[in-house]
Amino acid sequence: MTHHFMQLAINKAWQYQGLTYPNPAVGAVILYQDNIIGLQAHQKAGTSHAEVLALVEAFENISEQKIEFDRFDSHKAHNFLQNLPKGFFAECTIYITLEPCSHVGKTPSCASLLEILKPKKVIIALNDPIAGHGGGIQKLQRANIQVEVGSLQKEAKELLEPFLIWQKRAFVLFKLAQTSNGRIGGGYLSSQESLTHVHQMREVCDTLVIGGATVRNDRPTLDCRFTKGKSPNILIYSQQKSFDQEIPLFQIQNREVEVSNNLDLLEKPSFIIIEGGEGMLKAMQTKIDWYLIYQTPKLSTNPLSYSIDKKLSFLHVDKKGIDRMIWSK
Amino acid sequence: MTHHFMQLAINKAWQYQGLTYPNPAVGAVILYQDNIIGLQAHQKAGTSHAEVLALVEAFENISEQKIEFDRFDSHKAHNFLQNLPKGFFAECTIYITLEPCSHVGKTPSCASLLEILKPKKVIIALNDPIAGHGGGIQKLQRANIQVEVGSLQKEAKELLEPFLIWQKRAFVLFKLAQTSNGRIGGGYLSSQESLTHVHQMREVCDTLVIGGATVRNDRPTLDCRFTKGKSPNILIYSQQKSFDQEIPLFQIQNREVEVSNNLDLLEKPSFIIIEGGEGMLKAMQTKIDWYLIYQTPKLSTNPLSYSIDKKLSFLHVDKKGIDRMIWSK
Repeated sequence: MTHHFMQLAINKAWQYQGLTYPNPAVGAVILYQDNIIGLQAHQKAGTSHAEVLALVEAFENISEQKIEFDRFDSHKAHNFLQNLPKGFFAECTIYITLEPCSHVGKTPSCASLLEILKPKKVIIALNDPIAGHGGGIQKLQRANIQVEVGSLQKEAKELLEPFLIWQKRAFVLFKLAQTSNGRIGGGYLSSQESLTHVHQMREVCDTLVIGGATVRNDRPTLDCRFTKGKSPNILIYSQQKSFDQEIPLFQIQNREVEVSNNLDLLEKPSFIIIEGGEGMLKAMQTKIDWYLIYQTPKLSTNPLSYSIDKKLSFLHVDKKGIDRMIWSK
Repeated sequence: MTHHFMQLAINKAWQYQGLTYPNPAVGAVILYQDNIIGLQAHQKAGTSHAEVLALVEAFENISEQKIEFDRFDSHKAHNFLQNLPKGFFAECTIYITLEPCSHVGKTPSCASLLEILKPKKVIIALNDPIAGHGGGIQKLQRANIQVEVGSLQKEAKELLEPFLIWQKRAFVLFKLAQTSNGRIGGGYLSSQESLTHVHQMREVCDTLVIGGATVRNDRPTLDCRFTKGKSPNILIYSQQKSFDQEIPLFQIQNREVEVSNNLDLLEKPSFIIIEGGEGMLKAMQTKIDWYLIYQTPKLSTNPLSYSIDKKLSFLHVDKKGIDRMIWSK
């Protein structure tokens, strides 16, 4: 009967899939008196974890006050929460897609925070899979908090897959934008939300890989102007080394551009995004872990599409404005 | 804060969109002590409504007993529920996407049932939009049940659109099956769940419209063998009247087949499904209300696709086994 809430937490976490790099995507739900008073996900490495953001939201809903500090500053958030009156969350049930962290990194330990806050019950989908981490559950149990583990474990594992891959080698995401009938290459993103998401993803990845033909034909910029963030380093995947330096992507400050047909960078633990069409899809076929397909609600007569035989599976579908963002592998 | 539960009810209702014809798609959620103990939708006209199915499920979860009667028999279900000990649902909150019916039709009145069961609170997305119906909310209020109306009204209205259309004229649904890269015509449904859903939809519609060229080239059966239901009546949309009577669709018992290029049937309140490819899509373009696109997780080199300029909007995405079912308009 608890699966619906865990599913909400997992869905919330998917909204920030990739964006949390190098951290995992994690979601949390807080229930109090038949109401969902917190539903949050970890958004960005170095900022507050999912359960902390959900607890802050829960405080706001219970107290009907807005907090005034930066909720993404984990030290401020932990400090605020652990100084609330004792028992403030005593009647709350918390669902978390991953075992709360017990170690102190850039952010303080969430398990230690929950130990102090003593909610009624904590339901966790998945144990921390990193060797040497973990211990969060034992901490909660020692504090006599009721803990349940294993709700929607399979779905929570799928959510965590990029994180597990980029521990060992590059996680390779192929990004495509298409119409409902599979036409590409016409700048097919209808919504500002999709465009912003592309730029958020670019900002967080280690390297953006693009095909030489696309660079020559489309003369792209490949920056992060919608998020005003740092533009990604570029690998132009090409046999031929010479490119017109007037192409906008070369004009961007604080970015490295490499032209190479060597893919050794994929061995290194990292997050690599490939943007391209049929050519890159074919060239990179065996290297791609996941596909992120932005689908715009439009049928088009543009003949440009991609033709390749490949079995996929759908992982998650999310809204981005009027578009849908389809995670597949 | 109540939107998450209403959204669950709406999502559940979408699973039976179209299949409830001529009834509306309706979903219901029941909450008790921070748990969802009922989540159900109306499935088929003449059978129990969403809130009744959810109440039966809630009974099973609270009592930890399985009921032994047919839960889809609304008379048996109402009778069972109203004879439960007084106050059985007194601590429950019920979310329903549509005002509970106050009139007695093929099924007894749900508002009258709730009046007896007296749940703590009933949250309703939308008033009954049919003139002369309604009155369910007043019934609940007169019984001193706390009622809230208007949560996710916009989404609940969208869910109800086919129902509102088929009150006045034909609701026309165009069905397509395609790969992730928009290739059609290769029998592109991977999952038995998708195939079964297609047959359920065929069974419930008034007429299945198909293009003459498709009949000649594909020699389809267009039956409901996966649901063992009655195969739909067929309109072959064609100028030319003569067809090889050996084509399987003509061999099906208890079915009418008409060959015509007259679309007067669209004036009549009814539910029409069109199956076809690019030709039918172009011919029917101005007549189509909604699109149901089954998308299979596969990239394909099959060159057959469809090329047409049309702006759509996404309504809902659902799983059907490994496939996704995308409602658009």
